[in-house]
Amino acid sequence: MLSFSVSGTYADLYEITMGQTYFLEGRHAETACFDYFFRKIPNNGGYVLFAGLHDLLEALEGLQFTDEDIAYLQELRLHPDYLDFLKSFRFKGTLHAPPEGEVIFPHSPIVRVEGTLLETQLIESLLLNILNFASLVATKASRIRQVAGNRTLSDFGLRRAHGPGAVLAARAAVVGGFNSTSNTYAALKYGIPAAGTMAHSFIESYDAELEAFRAFARSRPDDCIFLVDTYHTLQSGVPNAITVAKELEAQGHKAVGIRLDSGDLAYLAKAARNMLNEAGFPYVKIITSNQLDEFVIRSLLEQQAPIDVFGVGTKLVTGAPDAALDGVYKLAMAAGKARLKLSESKEKTTLPGIKQVLRTLDEEGKFYGADAVILASEGNHADLIRHPVEEERQLYLRDCRQEPLLQKVMENGQRTAAPPALAETAAYAQKRLRQLPEEYKRLENPHLYKVGISPQLWELREQLKAHFHK
Amino acid sequence: MLSFSVSGTYADLYEITMGQTYFLEGRHAETACFDYFFRKIPNNGGYVLFAGLHDLLEALEGLQFTDEDIAYLQELRLHPDYLDFLKSFRFKGTLHAPPEGEVIFPHSPIVRVEGTLLETQLIESLLLNILNFASLVATKASRIRQVAGNRTLSDFGLRRAHGPGAVLAARAAVVGGFNSTSNTYAALKYGIPAAGTMAHSFIESYDAELEAFRAFARSRPDDCIFLVDTYHTLQSGVPNAITVAKELEAQGHKAVGIRLDSGDLAYLAKAARNMLNEAGFPYVKIITSNQLDEFVIRSLLEQQAPIDVFGVGTKLVTGAPDAALDGVYKLAMAAGKARLKLSESKEKTTLPGIKQVLRTLDEEGKFYGADAVILASEGNHADLIRHPVEEERQLYLRDCRQEPLLQKVMENGQRTAAPPALAETAAYAQKRLRQLPEEYKRLENPHLYKVGISPQLWELREQLKAHFHK
Repeated sequence: MLSFSVSGTYADLYEITMGQTYFLEGRHAETACFDYFFRKIPNNGGYVLFAGLHDLLEALEGLQFTDEDIAYLQELRLHPDYLDFLKSFRFKGTLHAPPEGEVIFPHSPIVRVEGTLLETQLIESLLLNILNFASLVATKASRIRQVAGNRTLSDFGLRRAHGPGAVLAARAAVVGGFNSTSNTYAALKYGIPAAGTMAHSFIESYDAELEAFRAFARSRPDDCIFLVDTYHTLQSGVPNAITVAKELEAQGHKAVGIRLDSGDLAYLAKAARNMLNEAGFPYVKIITSNQLDEFVIRSLLEQQAPIDVFGVGTKLVTGAPDAALDGVYKLAMAAGKARLKLSESKEKTTLPGIKQVLRTLDEEGKFYGADAVILASEGNHADLIRHPVEEERQLYLRDCRQEPLLQKVMENGQRTAAPPALAETAAYAQKRLRQLPEEYKRLENPHLYKVGISPQLWELREQLKAHFHK
Repeated sequence: MLSFSVSGTYADLYEITMGQTYFLEGRHAETACFDYFFRKIPNNGGYVLFAGLHDLLEALEGLQFTDEDIAYLQELRLHPDYLDFLKSFRFKGTLHAPPEGEVIFPHSPIVRVEGTLLETQLIESLLLNILNFASLVATKASRIRQVAGNRTLSDFGLRRAHGPGAVLAARAAVVGGFNSTSNTYAALKYGIPAAGTMAHSFIESYDAELEAFRAFARSRPDDCIFLVDTYHTLQSGVPNAITVAKELEAQGHKAVGIRLDSGDLAYLAKAARNMLNEAGFPYVKIITSNQLDEFVIRSLLEQQAPIDVFGVGTKLVTGAPDAALDGVYKLAMAAGKARLKLSESKEKTTLPGIKQVLRTLDEEGKFYGADAVILASEGNHADLIRHPVEEERQLYLRDCRQEPLLQKVMENGQRTAAPPALAETAAYAQKRLRQLPEEYKRLENPHLYKVGISPQLWELREQLKAHFHK
């Protein structure tokens, strides 16, 4: 049976071998702090929607090395004392993060992980694997929601998703604004409304389309969505759907909709809508699928295609074309000292120390477009931020309200609160997106949201640089 | 704990609800045949490498509805008699397919699934979910192998993969020609060599780079790959690596390599190679990573960058930019009759009936560039193929050798043979790729490999079309 459970080996090997050095050198219990952040917004967008925290925290609570893991690491010639230690390993660290559904920006810490050097290092790839992908898909979903208005959006991506990544994608889609999924496993696991219609094969398996529609209506009289493009949409599919919708009405039931999966969706939706209305079925919805994304949906709606439900697959669950969020996990503190990666490119120099992020808001509660990364010891306000790299550029934020984004979500390896319902998370995302001004949300060439650093943080980084250059 | 097991609900809901109709109408035990095929080669390539069969067959052998699945489907108001039936459901179908590692082309059946109407319909999305993704990644891996010659290729993609899709990706990469993976879970699960180096965080956690290298060398003296770009590659990283390599030699050990993860990889690799050689370490390898793909690697090697190992992440495991193979699963036969989807676009009309695919070979055993899709009843040779859509175009294949591609791999729900070792599958892929002429393998604008259909198959399709148009 194909199955995956996150256990200790769900890691890049180097995390386990670096851990061995820490252990054998007696450093594994030293304290450390890592930051999760990303550098570039995928798909030319103006923001990223944070998702995946729930699955990450659940994985961390259950994380352990199974007997199979230990036996395998023995084969890799890891030290027996270290393996003994790993046998009873549990993650006991502390995490600060915004709620899922938060709007986030490049170069700003999103998750702060504190704990022992060993445990914080071991979870690097696990954290990145979940958060990068979930945030990628939630962001894509939110762009699609933005153009779809209040029409229904359903995830149809299981068949094109990256194996069981489909399951995380279905949940992330809901965080970003989707209503349902065709992925029954994900629907069960996360309590997402399950949605489905019928396949061409169903219709072809009958000698006639009308017969197929009638058979389906007999067994699901209140859940009929007729796929109308198997033979000829307007000459065959829609007329047959109307026939069966009439038969259902006569029996006290109502057909739910028809689905268009090929051809010119704008033209066919208009023609089908007219036919349905003229036949007395204004309530029969039009569902479309077939290589949809935010751009195709926007175009369909600009043409005033009367579509009620969009089933989105490939482009949603793969987050194409970029298909990845470039999130990284970088050391900020170890053994009581702030730490720095210098790098040959200025942009890749990391931000040292234990940090907080302040979201700046204007009088109306809208995001001001300039977040502040500060040292956690500075409190919860920043009057002045500096560009993270360019020395001369700075910005005063004097009369603004600021909110700390990083809140404690895990302590001593346990969640600090029960996870919010998925619907609550989705509502939070929409609330935060409403606070984000339009210019950061537009699909083409969005405005650049500024993230600056406090003078104290700048100073700390300069000290560490100077230390290295000596 | 985050975990996924493929059970009956790992399906699109419509497969389960269509199954209910078949069951309630007494049609579920009728025979049916579905074909898996794809329409477009991803990422402008000239071929696809077939992968994922092993995981698919394993999943089908174990497929069942758990108690949790049944309870959930009850909530969705499925019929109690149908749920009783699903409780004891096991897949008992027959599959024909080429071995993993076969070179495949658009519009040609790749997997033929025969069994009851219900069971063959239920596995649609499970099959597509595994085969589409594994074949996407194996194809990408083979393109990278093609440019990398016999240099070592390692999958570094866990952190950017689509959640647990990472695990399938690691295996598919090996099918396509990769040597190892950093993904320890996948290494354990599939017996792939595990590979790893060290992170910047490891080095930063020490007060000095040299100290970090020495500590690592103490605990892994025969597995040292030093990451040299944390502070300054040529002024600090490489000199420190040389120092520790000398210390290791004095103790009877040999450093394995250095890793470059930023900056101009061609320039840095050449400079580092010179420094290592001059210091007496010609055996210390150069490993690179950082946003590599087939195009970047080709460019590095054109510049004669002395790189021994490429660690490839994001672009490999996401199959970007397309990030999906568009494989579909279409009905070809039901209740003893050949079946057809007409569609408004000619290219989307399906091929009816139980079919075989013949790979045509020239005198030297190279692929001739023209496969034949025939009815299985026609035997194992096709003298003439017709273009699948354009009436006038046909091609004689008289004096060619032909091989049937679809072999029985599962019967009555059980594999017909033990799965080949992964290394054997990888070797088969390379053998078949050597049989594919260069013009189909080039990265830019590859030649179009023809797939034609037999006159008998053409005729069957015409009959079915005529039947519908009546």
